[in-house]
Amino acid sequence: MGKSQILEMLEAHNYKELKEVLESMHPVDIVEILEELDKKQMILIFRLLAKEEAAEVFTDMNSDKREDLINALTDSELEEVMEEMYVDDTVDVLEEMPANVVDRLLLATDEETRVKINALLQYPEDSAGSIMNVEYISLRREMTVADAILKIRQVGINKETIYTCYVTEKRHLIGMVDVKELLTAGESRRIEEIMDENVLYARTLDDQEDVAKTIKKYGLIAIPIIDHENCLVGIVTVDDAMLVLQDETTEDISIMAGVSPNEDSYFGTSIFKHAGNRTPWLMLLMLSATVTGEILGYYEEAMAVMPVLITFIPMLMGTGGNCGSQSSTLIIRGLAVGEIQFKDIFRVIFKEIRIALVVSMMLAFVNGIRIYIMYGQNMMLSVALGLTMIAVVVMAKCIGCTLPLLAKKLGLDPAIMAAPLITTILDTCTILVYFNIVTTFFGI
Amino acid sequence: MGKSQILEMLEAHNYKELKEVLESMHPVDIVEILEELDKKQMILIFRLLAKEEAAEVFTDMNSDKREDLINALTDSELEEVMEEMYVDDTVDVLEEMPANVVDRLLLATDEETRVKINALLQYPEDSAGSIMNVEYISLRREMTVADAILKIRQVGINKETIYTCYVTEKRHLIGMVDVKELLTAGESRRIEEIMDENVLYARTLDDQEDVAKTIKKYGLIAIPIIDHENCLVGIVTVDDAMLVLQDETTEDISIMAGVSPNEDSYFGTSIFKHAGNRTPWLMLLMLSATVTGEILGYYEEAMAVMPVLITFIPMLMGTGGNCGSQSSTLIIRGLAVGEIQFKDIFRVIFKEIRIALVVSMMLAFVNGIRIYIMYGQNMMLSVALGLTMIAVVVMAKCIGCTLPLLAKKLGLDPAIMAAPLITTILDTCTILVYFNIVTTFFGI
Repeated sequence: MGKSQILEMLEAHNYKELKEVLESMHPVDIVEILEELDKKQMILIFRLLAKEEAAEVFTDMNSDKREDLINALTDSELEEVMEEMYVDDTVDVLEEMPANVVDRLLLATDEETRVKINALLQYPEDSAGSIMNVEYISLRREMTVADAILKIRQVGINKETIYTCYVTEKRHLIGMVDVKELLTAGESRRIEEIMDENVLYARTLDDQEDVAKTIKKYGLIAIPIIDHENCLVGIVTVDDAMLVLQDETTEDISIMAGVSPNEDSYFGTSIFKHAGNRTPWLMLLMLSATVTGEILGYYEEAMAVMPVLITFIPMLMGTGGNCGSQSSTLIIRGLAVGEIQFKDIFRVIFKEIRIALVVSMMLAFVNGIRIYIMYGQNMMLSVALGLTMIAVVVMAKCIGCTLPLLAKKLGLDPAIMAAPLITTILDTCTILVYFNIVTTFFGI
Repeated sequence: MGKSQILEMLEAHNYKELKEVLESMHPVDIVEILEELDKKQMILIFRLLAKEEAAEVFTDMNSDKREDLINALTDSELEEVMEEMYVDDTVDVLEEMPANVVDRLLLATDEETRVKINALLQYPEDSAGSIMNVEYISLRREMTVADAILKIRQVGINKETIYTCYVTEKRHLIGMVDVKELLTAGESRRIEEIMDENVLYARTLDDQEDVAKTIKKYGLIAIPIIDHENCLVGIVTVDDAMLVLQDETTEDISIMAGVSPNEDSYFGTSIFKHAGNRTPWLMLLMLSATVTGEILGYYEEAMAVMPVLITFIPMLMGTGGNCGSQSSTLIIRGLAVGEIQFKDIFRVIFKEIRIALVVSMMLAFVNGIRIYIMYGQNMMLSVALGLTMIAVVVMAKCIGCTLPLLAKKLGLDPAIMAAPLITTILDTCTILVYFNIVTTFFGI
């Protein structure tokens, strides 16, 4: 069902049919359509949604639209929406809102939920605690399978995930049982007989990215989260983990392009915010590049004697930069997915040097032939440029693979060592190597 | 439990204890340790694993190590391992193996499984069919909830995912029921009363990346896959989707750095394979850069008249390249996560131009002051470089944001329009803009 059909029904005041259509749609798709409508239409349609659906739509929409909605809804409408939301989603919503709106939203929730929300709001922004879900099924070791299924029946419908139940004793996590096992075990067996005591867990203050990686690595649907007293306080589910990983990758990719990361979408970010995210790196790199310029100026005389030397500069600088960023990018990604660690540094450098030798000889050969043909069969020039090419590529690959590993070791984000910075550093090095080789070679 | 402790037990022939330790470990962690051991040790430890664990370890390990293992195991040992593996995992294993090994592995599976395997092997490499799981629970509409739970109890233990059951009629998918609902609904209710008829599904030939994105978008645990006759033939689960998305991102990042993507890990790829993945782009870019060089040579005279012009070249080329790659990277990522589409092209260009104006004026201002101070308070030079900077940044951002969108429209991977190519294209444009402005300005 597309946007145009929905608008048609809205304009025809065909609310009954529209309501039915909306009920059959997935909340995610409704959000997509609502975000393209104007404020008035959006609010009209939102009011037609069933309670549960409204809560999901409210959770999924972007923060600007949500603020419009909050301003338009009455307190009792807002209360109804909040009642249907999961506590962790409520917290996510609150974290993005201005203080006066937060107050209004908190007034619209009941006392018990408010206590839970306040507890979750305490966790640092990127911690596991901030994305965990406080609703899960906990069982006791002495329960039978039948008891457990009965408990799930009674409370399960309100939980986002009930496929893994956690067994606790005085709030400490002592085991877990998959619903799969509950369903296939005999009804009279006791939980402690079938529970798995080897439970993977994370802590409230762990980095959310690490927790998401654990979920991915072990193929989990959820991971339990314990606090500093080792008490079970929540779970992080696989769908949240997927979003965390996507955001972290987007952040890495931004940094790799010399753009400060940004939580909002491309279009959701203002011109000035975009400019602010991009200018610092550009400024730094622009000023660093003047060093290369000064060095180039220093070799003015050599270029006056042999003007042809100028024409090879873009090619050498380009190739050096590209070689370096190939290596740094592969290492940055390898670090991000956990394939490479700092302890591998010498293995990496040795590997990159060998790769650089193979690559550079091919490049030097092709380039040598081109120069030989284009510049009056000047063999000396071909050889000088060939040697420069080999030196530049080997240097570029060494620097390109080493800097991200060093950054990691120093506790910096390896992604800052991607193309922009590497390229600027290599530009200077390339010019130095180039002119040192050619001035020696041609005695200028 | 670390590698060193395991090796100690192995050397002390303390097999009984080692076996117990291995049983308490997660297969993923065992794989990590095995991959660091030598062949003989690896095979010894593998033989100590319990059957089910052995199958999981065998599935998770990298293909080189797996081949070593296959060569070492007897036919009956291999048969035992294969029996415990899920069909989709078997297919993944087979796809990476040389033909003679595949024959040996197929001989080690029973007739029924072999038929399933052969069917799965038919699907194209990146299709949903190739990663789907053929084991799932199907229910009939006339079953009661009690019948359904009974069925899950009987067959469920062998299925990788039983949390969503699919309702079929003559093999056609007509609805789905979450195990959550089965547990919370009355036992005598019929499946057709509680099933959800709005089922999201994908087709066997759909791109696996699209299927993974659907799973992420809707927060699913699994999605059913139907064939060309609309019959349900399998499911794709969230853990496989996460791996697909990670691989696709790694592929994108590789391409963005001018490296042909590669399914193996960094260390798992040979020197020559690495060189082969990197050289084509470098060669192409190196040869393209000669165009920039030639153009630079063309302005030799201008530089002879005003040698200071040379010193600004690295800064202008660097800034142009960085600006362009900032824009192209953000657009490529926006396209990858579905935030930006081709139809947004004019909105994007308009936005980038405004961003470019803000950014370039800041850069031009800082740079102008620097030049004014460093080059004998030459106001003309400051202004000429300021104008060049603004022109270069605006041009870089326009080209940087447009090319990935055009690539997408033409059915190419937008990631090829990242830093390396953009930078090379922009180098030429920057030189042209720069010398056109300064030669006009200073009448040279």
